[in-house]
Amino acid sequence: MSTVFASIGTSLDGFLAGPNARPGNPLGDGGARIHRWVYEVEAWRERQNLLPGGGVVATVAHPSAEIVEENFARAGAYVMGHRMFAEGELAWPDPPPFRAPVFVLTHTPREPWVREGGTTFHFVTDGPEAALDAARKAAGDKDVQISGGAETVRTYLNAGLVDELEIHLAPILLGSGTRLLDGVDPELRLAPDRTVATPEVTHIRYRVG
Amino acid sequence: MSTVFASIGTSLDGFLAGPNARPGNPLGDGGARIHRWVYEVEAWRERQNLLPGGGVVATVAHPSAEIVEENFARAGAYVMGHRMFAEGELAWPDPPPFRAPVFVLTHTPREPWVREGGTTFHFVTDGPEAALDAARKAAGDKDVQISGGAETVRTYLNAGLVDELEIHLAPILLGSGTRLLDGVDPELRLAPDRTVATPEVTHIRYRVG
Repeated sequence: MSTVFASIGTSLDGFLAGPNARPGNPLGDGGARIHRWVYEVEAWRERQNLLPGGGVVATVAHPSAEIVEENFARAGAYVMGHRMFAEGELAWPDPPPFRAPVFVLTHTPREPWVREGGTTFHFVTDGPEAALDAARKAAGDKDVQISGGAETVRTYLNAGLVDELEIHLAPILLGSGTRLLDGVDPELRLAPDRTVATPEVTHIRYRVG
Repeated sequence: MSTVFASIGTSLDGFLAGPNARPGNPLGDGGARIHRWVYEVEAWRERQNLLPGGGVVATVAHPSAEIVEENFARAGAYVMGHRMFAEGELAWPDPPPFRAPVFVLTHTPREPWVREGGTTFHFVTDGPEAALDAARKAAGDKDVQISGGAETVRTYLNAGLVDELEIHLAPILLGSGTRLLDGVDPELRLAPDRTVATPEVTHIRYRVG
């Protein structure tokens, strides 16, 4: 059965977005610093259509790069909240970075939106469990990634539906903003099972439940 | 010159004490779970007079134990806030665990209090810099540990006087309480330089500034 995982960057003080996050400023003030480590990872740049000339760039073995590549490789389907979708709809490149079915939690019915490169957005109006069921089915032997945002990750954590939570802990402070773990049930059981340390970010993966 | 370091346990959601922390309940509700990893470390138990019969117990090489031993070995003097002192005064065993001079930030003058085993509490009424200067002098070639609590660590971090911050990140959530990093200047520069992962706790040490 698919593993359900979330893979989220936060500041050392626990924020996944800085203050004043809003449409057009989804990471909040200073929030892009959380993800600074990923911007040079080839696998990520490739998914963002940021490789020069669209050509093949020699990749350098790097622990952070391996983690990004692993996540892309294992994710057979994604679940995301409607705010993250609305923001990304404007910002993702064409083709979008997912290259797999994406199930969007929403209250607004909409026909599936087929994009190039394997990404199809499906709009699910009957709740988080239905979205996850559909994502599991679509993922087949692969895993399901709960993409975000914070509220969506919290919903799935509190429903006991997440198997793995990986936090990419950036060595920065934001001071205010949106915290990943606010409102998550303190009874949640977490067991660290892989830690990868680099000068730019500390990746800590927890088994959940 | 002495390195000034802090070494603080927090929950994954950033709390160094749970809710309802107060005299008699200094770690707050559930806060003892933050430190569960240390309770079986021999070097810590020895300092707490918790070894059976006071005898010598064979120590097991364990990454967490090595970190505790290293901290005890390097600390030539301590600085702490008056609330932590007031709480500890009642709770520490005799002899107290420090075995070195401890400089307590306070507004209430008091004669030095010499305890057995090398611990002397000095009460400093002329501010954090004076306390640190005195601690540096007392530490000689060893280092100075900013013991806590949260407000004292924050004061020294914001004054740019801490060289190293080690966080012992427990895989638990507390949901509310006192956060270590609330009120710390977001401009603080942090660079992880040692990460030690165990199933019970993730130790991440940052160079500061």
